[in-house]
Amino acid sequence: MRNNILYAQSGGPTAVINASAYGVIAEAKKLGLGKVYAGINGIEGILNENIVEVTNLSEEQLNLLKNTPGTAFGSCRYHLPDAEKSPEVYQKIAETFSKYEIGCFFYNGGNDSMDTCSKIAHYFADNNIDCQVIGIPKTIDNDLDQTHHCPGYGSAAKFIATVMHEMALDTASYTKGKVTVVEIMGRDTGWLTAASIVASHNGAGPDLVYLPERSFDTEQFIEDVANIYKTKHRCLVAVAEGIKDKDGNYIATYGTMDNFNHVQMGGTAYRLAKILEHHNFKTRAVEINLPQRCGGHILSKTDRNEAIQSGRYAVKQWQKGKTCCMVAIKATSDNGKYKVSYTAVPIEKVANAVKYVPDQYILPNGQLDNKLLDYILPLMEGTVTQKYINGTPHYFKLDKIKY
Amino acid sequence: MRNNILYAQSGGPTAVINASAYGVIAEAKKLGLGKVYAGINGIEGILNENIVEVTNLSEEQLNLLKNTPGTAFGSCRYHLPDAEKSPEVYQKIAETFSKYEIGCFFYNGGNDSMDTCSKIAHYFADNNIDCQVIGIPKTIDNDLDQTHHCPGYGSAAKFIATVMHEMALDTASYTKGKVTVVEIMGRDTGWLTAASIVASHNGAGPDLVYLPERSFDTEQFIEDVANIYKTKHRCLVAVAEGIKDKDGNYIATYGTMDNFNHVQMGGTAYRLAKILEHHNFKTRAVEINLPQRCGGHILSKTDRNEAIQSGRYAVKQWQKGKTCCMVAIKATSDNGKYKVSYTAVPIEKVANAVKYVPDQYILPNGQLDNKLLDYILPLMEGTVTQKYINGTPHYFKLDKIKY
Repeated sequence: MRNNILYAQSGGPTAVINASAYGVIAEAKKLGLGKVYAGINGIEGILNENIVEVTNLSEEQLNLLKNTPGTAFGSCRYHLPDAEKSPEVYQKIAETFSKYEIGCFFYNGGNDSMDTCSKIAHYFADNNIDCQVIGIPKTIDNDLDQTHHCPGYGSAAKFIATVMHEMALDTASYTKGKVTVVEIMGRDTGWLTAASIVASHNGAGPDLVYLPERSFDTEQFIEDVANIYKTKHRCLVAVAEGIKDKDGNYIATYGTMDNFNHVQMGGTAYRLAKILEHHNFKTRAVEINLPQRCGGHILSKTDRNEAIQSGRYAVKQWQKGKTCCMVAIKATSDNGKYKVSYTAVPIEKVANAVKYVPDQYILPNGQLDNKLLDYILPLMEGTVTQKYINGTPHYFKLDKIKY
Repeated sequence: MRNNILYAQSGGPTAVINASAYGVIAEAKKLGLGKVYAGINGIEGILNENIVEVTNLSEEQLNLLKNTPGTAFGSCRYHLPDAEKSPEVYQKIAETFSKYEIGCFFYNGGNDSMDTCSKIAHYFADNNIDCQVIGIPKTIDNDLDQTHHCPGYGSAAKFIATVMHEMALDTASYTKGKVTVVEIMGRDTGWLTAASIVASHNGAGPDLVYLPERSFDTEQFIEDVANIYKTKHRCLVAVAEGIKDKDGNYIATYGTMDNFNHVQMGGTAYRLAKILEHHNFKTRAVEINLPQRCGGHILSKTDRNEAIQSGRYAVKQWQKGKTCCMVAIKATSDNGKYKVSYTAVPIEKVANAVKYVPDQYILPNGQLDNKLLDYILPLMEGTVTQKYINGTPHYFKLDKIKY
């Protein structure tokens, strides 16, 4: 039996993906298993045998890793071709795994990464290769199916809710303010934008919220803004980058395709601000942009801990002989007390599926239902105290990566 | 003698302006002086007699106020006309101050607000009105003259350095990354952009930095980026919103005038990203935008404490009979140990003056000299632990203001 394991990261960074890496390494060390390797830059790096041993990271380094945002081992957006079309790619993977005696491959990513896991797992099964494949969920978007929520979301939600709360205080400064349109990440789903409801719940947040789960009606938007402006003399709007009109056209001004045929979004807030200016509103467009997915200075402790536990649980599934599965979170609210447990779900059910904000959380006018708070608030609970050195949090840095 | 005092806020919000309000109120209460009033929305509100008593705020409310970003009492951008042209405005102020028995007016703002202070102080002197006028400095821009630095800057610098550090980790995810151009506030001065040097000092920060203190050469910029990209396959750029070309034209794509004839900036990062795209770079434009001036969740403890002390010191200057002055900070570095003291400087020397990043901190190629770290790091030192309720920091909110 192969005793070593290989861990790699894929897709967009989150604030807690490295907490899952920590969980994998810590659990393997705790159980006294073989070596833990990390692939640098995901499956793309593994194909180039860009692999480092991480079992020998010091306790101090591991503790830094646990609270460091971004992908500490690098990521990729490599689209694995089908095995029938490009068998040499899979042969290279199999050879490398054999060389390093890899008994389980842990891939930490979103739905595209789970598609990669699925392909590799099937190739291994079809070719009697003695290596398991286990996915560890990671995405700020919270759009993975089969799991109550995703590690990465709670911290992004906490950052978004906090800066929306702070911006609501900021924009209340003047008697006649502007219409401030804040663009939040979310190509297809509104989970991140929905987190801004927490700011409103806490006394100062957006007046209006628009999710991609509903088609965007520009005339209605102008009317909504005008109604708020009439009484408040200002208006704060939270909008998902991926909103589309009834014909399915993105509101964003431009778009190009990435390797997964996803549209690269941007400019939704600017477009809306320009539309409002034509109706004589003074506006400001804000994109929360990258800081929302790497806000290590304001982690949700719940999210950070669940990311760690997802990594630990993945290692336990390897020991149980599971493969072609993804770690998923089950959450219950027992008399208002939030409880989680972990399970392993078939990876095919996750790969390329998308979980939208359900109808029950969206009011008939497209705005958010306060019921959503019961879902979101527990995920944002708790703070992580970072150690600051020279004015910024002290973060883990891998020698292999050039910053 | 008039025993009450009036405090008001003016100009753009900061993360610690309310700490100065706390300082004024706490010191007046400690000394057992008269009532403390706050003008709502600065001098504009005072002209409408929009005034509340704040001496009776509870201890709990005051403790929240101390750590709340934004202008808790509202702000304005009202340009006070000259007394010769509009004597009725000054008569109204004098009447209101007489009615509330105001012995000292504390105006918490930037250089435009100090111009307002100066005008009112001179009117009072010329008309034998028994009321002092004392300015309390506040600006994230750090551009006030006669003071070593300004309350508000340290916290904004801490936020900027931290998110630049986190974005540097984030953008290091892929083997072939983009050129990420990050726009930071700063119409005329580069103090805020300069704070990003701290991220680089801490191991991951911008590769290139451009301040408004030097004219921006687009050709040189493209060459600088290309040089970095050649070896790193990505590039992180920090740029002040107010950079201009050698003919004095703003790089930003659009500009409109505000009441002080200042250009409203925005779009510098987008403009630069578009220029780079024409040279076949993949780019991402990021504006840190509003969050950098209201980041209450990541206050610099040094900055917060100095803001409080500035408020307290202002009250003491009233007791000493000072008028037409602004509180200023003197800082020394005694064997590397940072020490501050406070002084009162003639307000005319501050009003409408601008303090630029000095030449000694800028290298011949326009990039930053590490000597700047000695100036900036002490201002960012220390963290303030916020109390979180329901996922976001618990902040003070005045009933009078509709959020």
